Amino acid sequence: MKLYNYENGWIISERQFSIENNPAVEGAFTQGSGYLHIRGSLEEHIIDAPQNVSYLRMPANVSAEKFRTNKCKWGAYIPGIYCKHPTLNNELINLPFVIGLSPVVNGERFDLTKSKVSNYSRRLNLFNAVLTRELIWHTESGSDVKLVFERFVSSSNENCVFQLLEIESADDIEIEIVAGIDTDVRTNGFDHFTNVSFDQLGTNTMSAVLETDGNHSIEIVSELIAENVKWEYLLGKRKAQLTGKIKLNGGNNIRFEKRTCFTSSIDLQKRNSMQTLQEIKEKSFDQLIDEHSAIWKNRWERSDVVIEGDDEAQAAMRFSIYHLLRAHAGNDSRVAIDAKGYAGDAYWGRFFWDTEMYLLPFFSLTNPVKAKTLTDYRLQSLKGAIKNAGNYGYPGAKFAWESDAEGNECCPNWHYADHEIHITADVIYGLMYFSKIISGENYLLENASETIIESIKYLVERIDWSKGLNNPQILGVMGPDEYKPFVNNNFYTNYLIKFVMKNIYSNKKLLAKISDEKLVEKIKCAAEYLPVRKNEDGVWMQCDDFENFEEPQFENFWKDRTKPFASQVSQERIYRVKALKQADVLMAMFLFPQNFSINEIEKAYNYYQKYTTHDSSLSYGIHSIAASILGKKEDAWKYWELCSRIDIEGGTSEGIHIANAGAVWMVFVFGFAGLNSPIFSDHLRFNPLLPNQLQSVSFPLVWHGHDVFVELNHSAMIVVNKSSVELKVQVNGDIKLISKNSSQKYLIKE
Amino acid sequence: MKLYNYENGWIISERQFSIENNPAVEGAFTQGSGYLHIRGSLEEHIIDAPQNVSYLRMPANVSAEKFRTNKCKWGAYIPGIYCKHPTLNNELINLPFVIGLSPVVNGERFDLTKSKVSNYSRRLNLFNAVLTRELIWHTESGSDVKLVFERFVSSSNENCVFQLLEIESADDIEIEIVAGIDTDVRTNGFDHFTNVSFDQLGTNTMSAVLETDGNHSIEIVSELIAENVKWEYLLGKRKAQLTGKIKLNGGNNIRFEKRTCFTSSIDLQKRNSMQTLQEIKEKSFDQLIDEHSAIWKNRWERSDVVIEGDDEAQAAMRFSIYHLLRAHAGNDSRVAIDAKGYAGDAYWGRFFWDTEMYLLPFFSLTNPVKAKTLTDYRLQSLKGAIKNAGNYGYPGAKFAWESDAEGNECCPNWHYADHEIHITADVIYGLMYFSKIISGENYLLENASETIIESIKYLVERIDWSKGLNNPQILGVMGPDEYKPFVNNNFYTNYLIKFVMKNIYSNKKLLAKISDEKLVEKIKCAAEYLPVRKNEDGVWMQCDDFENFEEPQFENFWKDRTKPFASQVSQERIYRVKALKQADVLMAMFLFPQNFSINEIEKAYNYYQKYTTHDSSLSYGIHSIAASILGKKEDAWKYWELCSRIDIEGGTSEGIHIANAGAVWMVFVFGFAGLNSPIFSDHLRFNPLLPNQLQSVSFPLVWHGHDVFVELNHSAMIVVNKSSVELKVQVNGDIKLISKNSSQKYLIKE
Repeated sequence: MKLYNYENGWIISERQFSIENNPAVEGAFTQGSGYLHIRGSLEEHIIDAPQNVSYLRMPANVSAEKFRTNKCKWGAYIPGIYCKHPTLNNELINLPFVIGLSPVVNGERFDLTKSKVSNYSRRLNLFNAVLTRELIWHTESGSDVKLVFERFVSSSNENCVFQLLEIESADDIEIEIVAGIDTDVRTNGFDHFTNVSFDQLGTNTMSAVLETDGNHSIEIVSELIAENVKWEYLLGKRKAQLTGKIKLNGGNNIRFEKRTCFTSSIDLQKRNSMQTLQEIKEKSFDQLIDEHSAIWKNRWERSDVVIEGDDEAQAAMRFSIYHLLRAHAGNDSRVAIDAKGYAGDAYWGRFFWDTEMYLLPFFSLTNPVKAKTLTDYRLQSLKGAIKNAGNYGYPGAKFAWESDAEGNECCPNWHYADHEIHITADVIYGLMYFSKIISGENYLLENASETIIESIKYLVERIDWSKGLNNPQILGVMGPDEYKPFVNNNFYTNYLIKFVMKNIYSNKKLLAKISDEKLVEKIKCAAEYLPVRKNEDGVWMQCDDFENFEEPQFENFWKDRTKPFASQVSQERIYRVKALKQADVLMAMFLFPQNFSINEIEKAYNYYQKYTTHDSSLSYGIHSIAASILGKKEDAWKYWELCSRIDIEGGTSEGIHIANAGAVWMVFVFGFAGLNSPIFSDHLRFNPLLPNQLQSVSFPLVWHGHDVFVELNHSAMIVVNKSSVELKVQVNGDIKLISKNSSQKYLIKE
Repeated sequence: MKLYNYENGWIISERQFSIENNPAVEGAFTQGSGYLHIRGSLEEHIIDAPQNVSYLRMPANVSAEKFRTNKCKWGAYIPGIYCKHPTLNNELINLPFVIGLSPVVNGERFDLTKSKVSNYSRRLNLFNAVLTRELIWHTESGSDVKLVFERFVSSSNENCVFQLLEIESADDIEIEIVAGIDTDVRTNGFDHFTNVSFDQLGTNTMSAVLETDGNHSIEIVSELIAENVKWEYLLGKRKAQLTGKIKLNGGNNIRFEKRTCFTSSIDLQKRNSMQTLQEIKEKSFDQLIDEHSAIWKNRWERSDVVIEGDDEAQAAMRFSIYHLLRAHAGNDSRVAIDAKGYAGDAYWGRFFWDTEMYLLPFFSLTNPVKAKTLTDYRLQSLKGAIKNAGNYGYPGAKFAWESDAEGNECCPNWHYADHEIHITADVIYGLMYFSKIISGENYLLENASETIIESIKYLVERIDWSKGLNNPQILGVMGPDEYKPFVNNNFYTNYLIKFVMKNIYSNKKLLAKISDEKLVEKIKCAAEYLPVRKNEDGVWMQCDDFENFEEPQFENFWKDRTKPFASQVSQERIYRVKALKQADVLMAMFLFPQNFSINEIEKAYNYYQKYTTHDSSLSYGIHSIAASILGKKEDAWKYWELCSRIDIEGGTSEGIHIANAGAVWMVFVFGFAGLNSPIFSDHLRFNPLLPNQLQSVSFPLVWHGHDVFVELNHSAMIVVNKSSVELKVQVNGDIKLISKNSSQKYLIKE
């Protein structure tokens, strides 16, 4: 369903307010600085949409869970502030609602579900991350009042959100503005605040100080600015308000500003909210926007993918990149990017394998400094991973399927937490991938070696050696396809573990750090002998006995294909039929395409595709890339469209599918432009396959520290070497050396 | 650990109070009438042992869960009163503490953790189910005060508990008795009472009326009786008290009686608590005991197993039979016997396969009328089972792994609830078993046929037919061995389903009730083709690929054999190694021993025994019986001892292992006396093997409505036909016809 209009390639806009779509728009229009993220909720809020409802949310599969629908969902998050939920373990908590700015005109309160409104638009400018809402409010008293709301979470003052409300009227009106800090909010139905106090710090400034059940303290200061307005301070139940009144003469306008600053006890940089606001006191709203926008401009220069020929594709691409850039927590390696991109309470602010498989490629190839924060996040959470392994009775480090900032396993569902062990191999793969792209053997050997070796200790112990060193196997795992909760010798898991074992065994310097000879022997044997198997038709099998699962009978049990399979059958059936949630064998082939023949990939693609439900948002992108590898242009486009629409067509109520946002970028770079996996190649290699629907695509890359720009159309690929060294670049087998600061055109036959 | 002394074959006594053992003694000394059950808690309670602590208990495997230890645990239960727990689904709720009767002498409160005490004993008389506590209390004021507490939940007034406290002193003392009704109790940490009100109904009578969050109302009336005592009524926070004061002259004694009556909105028989107490007003405590004891005497005549040669064995046997008789809910077929025998909050008062496999044999063979309540319970809960099947997307009826009174699946752990499907076959087996023993084809065809057919519809649909009608299989199940959560073609499950399918297919009258020809065809094919497999050595395999599981390495991972394996390793490891929680293949062989050769049973016994942890209380008994079948006398005795000690040596804190109580009886009847499974035989067949440790054993049976008495010693088995018809009885292949009212002696060569 199309929710948005797209303007000039950068602006995503809602032209008609819809209460049904509002939660999705709030998620999609989330703004953030890395330090602070705030959902795109309405400043004036909506009546009868309480945000303080307590309920007991139980562990469940989020993708099949029915959420408590509401007209809106407030959300404000500081990455790293986790508290313990009684049933769900540690969760990122939802902070107070600070953007409240509610106009009352001639005694009438503005409310989008009640008020008569025209010329409405709510638009997110992706280029500078500013959210604007504009409308004319036809009041019951007969005035036409123009309202313009504008706000941004500042990238230059990353702990601040700046807001503007401009009101214009042809008639004389009486305006009252209610600006609040509302701390009466819940996270997944739970109240994490143990103590809340408010203060008025000056005539137009108020503060809230909160303590959490995780022993954090958070300070929030809001300053209200408007000419000739006198503010009245009012204390409510867990909220504070400043109310300002003014008469506006017809034909004039008035601007209200609200500047809010957050500080917390976990801040890397110790700041004082009041002082921060003091420091920028002299800066106008426009100045603040300019400073903020300059940073975003720079980000886009490093990352933008320009698509010609399809406005929707362009919008989806930039929407995804926007959220990737926004959600990255700057230089704070104590956190990564959570599964919902800090845009909702779902998935509890936790870090999954998304980090390595769907986020790391984008950052590694566009901004390695930011990529390093993600890999460093794993290194700094090693302690948690060692604790996890110990909890299961293993030596070494077991990375959590759902990790909090400290690496603790937080997944309350045992089957994922216990059995989805590929995550630990994924983490090692990520470290190797990043090291390779930055040509960073030092990173591997110095920074990452302890983490890698501890992880290997766990994995080696997790392998079943009871049939001998040359007959290892891995029993009872859940692979990437989470619809098979408990299988033996999952293809992806075994393949990835073989890969990392091989890499370690062949890295003499790394190996020298392992003194235990038995461990070394097992690393070698795992690399060599862990089984992956083909069936009689030569199809690589997802696990032992995959063919023995029951046929899924989709025609009987999955009648409404617009909804997930999982919403129409019981988990019990899913777990015993040949239904895949997402790419599994294909996922391994995507990671290591050069290890498989086209014939092998095609066999796997054809075999598994018919069983794959794509109930996971991590599936379409990989299928599009696999189709590109196979030269299946129409399939590649079909899966691209499905992939690109997940969020921009309304899947954002509970936050952003951030892994899919990474996949959106990957489809273009690894799929259509056909960049070969960087982990196997010292030079750039492309096998492009531009869809017929597009005219051209172009994007920047950073390759081993060197800036490159790539342009692709139906007749040629042009690679611009913007670096100061010569680069070797291969397109469809044609290898050229490109001098510094020059470009090379490769002709393409389609 | 030996907790108790045994006196004259009937009395189990604690001779020294121990606060550590107290919760176990409370559970073991639970009394009940079927309608009402009360744990053996101390009348005066213990200081610093609050029973109103709220906490959130999460779904977990009860057998591996660490319970909140406390010095004591109150418990009072009316079978059928279920309320919804926020995380655990419907649970049997813990009712108020009504037995409070606390003596204060010369201003000093009696408390077993503080007071100086001698000549202490707490004894449960199994013969008449009366609990007595006797002691001399050396008060701080220097008096030696004898206290005798006596109480019973009456079998003649099944909704009443009658209490006596006798106080005797050589010195003059001032006595104050505090008698309360305390409603401030929790069930698994949760408060289910939505409204509580109290009243004083006369000078010596008080009442409590409670409403639950499951819309029940419960009325409790307590009457206090003592000569020359004036009672004062006091209302506390959620409790009411009557306090009586009297001076006792040295050398005299005084008796305090407390009579408490429960009625509830779910009662089958509408009664009034006050009226009930009025009706028995003229009866003395001794009269009430006599009426109650007469009923117990009759029960024992039908059920007692007399063991000569081992007092502990005798005690364990009578202890088990006592709890089986107590926990049976009389003629109320809306409930069965819950997993903890209504003696604790654990397992939430739910009904498991215990009903059919461990309880039904005892009742069917000693008191078929009571057995019928258990099978009728399944019939009346068919609606719930149909709802369960629907919830999973199946036609027919899926019996719940953990069933409440209405048959709803209440197990909050999906792996048991979803995959332990043998329960539905167990229920059908139970109906067939009972029908066979009572020669009741009418019961099968009239009462049970709808339940059987609906169950079959579900099972047929649960089978994977995708490889053709002659190649069915059952994927993704948990068998009786719950340490393999998700296997294909579990032996027990497939074997039992084949059995029930075969029986239905061969029962022309039953088959005539099924109009769907495709269903009939599948019943036939399931009976014939569902696979059970042997390995190369001819051992029946627990499931597909059982041999592929990892060796359990018990020497490394199960070092303390006095504690469960599950307490020393993670569930993750358990699930992928060859570790059995309990009998699985052997369980099927126990049910159908005549279908297997001794060689087959022995191979299975030897193969699985080394992997079996017996972490489940359902395991030892079956192993003892299997050992008897195999003529392994020492093994049979070893497993008997382990089986018999589970509860009587302290496993009762959270209630009775009621299935094991059934197994205790089964070991003697099916193991040592060697009764062949009644389901396959129209006449009694025995293959006895009396352990060397015993001199003799004797017990009554009801066989197809006919009373029989069996005596076994090392030289002979004597079968007494107490019925009015001739009976055919076979002992070790020797078939004899025994005339009515006569006996037959069969010589035994050992």
